[in-house]
Amino acid sequence: MNLKDYIARVDNYPEEGIVFRDITPLMANGEAFAEATNQIVDYAKELEVDVVVGPEARGFIVGCPVAYELNIGFIPVRKKGKLPREVIEIDYSLEYGTNTLTIHADSIKPGQRVLIIDDLLATGGTVKASIDLVEKLGGIVVGCAFLIELTDLNGREKIKGYNIKALMDY
Amino acid sequence: MNLKDYIARVDNYPEEGIVFRDITPLMANGEAFAEATNQIVDYAKELEVDVVVGPEARGFIVGCPVAYELNIGFIPVRKKGKLPREVIEIDYSLEYGTNTLTIHADSIKPGQRVLIIDDLLATGGTVKASIDLVEKLGGIVVGCAFLIELTDLNGREKIKGYNIKALMDY
Repeated sequence: MNLKDYIARVDNYPEEGIVFRDITPLMANGEAFAEATNQIVDYAKELEVDVVVGPEARGFIVGCPVAYELNIGFIPVRKKGKLPREVIEIDYSLEYGTNTLTIHADSIKPGQRVLIIDDLLATGGTVKASIDLVEKLGGIVVGCAFLIELTDLNGREKIKGYNIKALMDY
Repeated sequence: MNLKDYIARVDNYPEEGIVFRDITPLMANGEAFAEATNQIVDYAKELEVDVVVGPEARGFIVGCPVAYELNIGFIPVRKKGKLPREVIEIDYSLEYGTNTLTIHADSIKPGQRVLIIDDLLATGGTVKASIDLVEKLGGIVVGCAFLIELTDLNGREKIKGYNIKALMDY
């Protein structure tokens, strides 16, 4: 199975000149969804992961089945104001302006081995912020898994030194 | 295992006087996450489900592992502007103002048997909007599954006639 057969190319989204890679056809196909999940599960098994962390919202789609299959927990990273209990937060730069991500302060125990999962590695801003949140809580980021890597955007450079797995690249 | 042991009570969130039921401790615990998922999977097996539909963002957390375990696809319902291809949309009332939800126009095939999954059945507005979107595309809503039902809010009344499963109630 070629997973790329299930990724839709959307030109000029979210704005003119951008080529968006849409994972929803992959998720809509039971076999493709299972294949992608299992490839990340296989990667995770080598890393002896204790818990999966995923940023909202597409990180939930990719990360939750992986956590379920590994019989481990899933911790959400969310935009400010979306988590109901005490959080720690981090600001990071976007192309225009900044964004703030948060994680529950009690969600990671020091020394836990964490796999961060998102749909896409683009500039790396979201995953770097997620890594920083996990490490502030004492977690050990043992890997970062993505369905897709956009290699021209050099996100891999921003998280140099971490173990990175991408199932597809463009 | 009592799943309620993993639900945190948060008083006065998101506003004064509201008691919020926080599912993140359940998701963070591998055994509890698996148990909740498997209970919904068992429910789904009786219904011969073709595809799972879940509203963002907590519907992704609960629904995606269920779809994975059933080896079927997952279709997201998202806020306006978040899905990149052609959508159909629906407006629904909130306590203050209205919200718009969307689904990809090609995501459901007529006659497909759909299970809608979300974390919480409260007033029922989100699930009713999701049902309407699925039915506009010709899907058959064979069930609606939730981790938690807030019985005082009478959401069950809003989706009367549909098959409903909630793992916990408050």
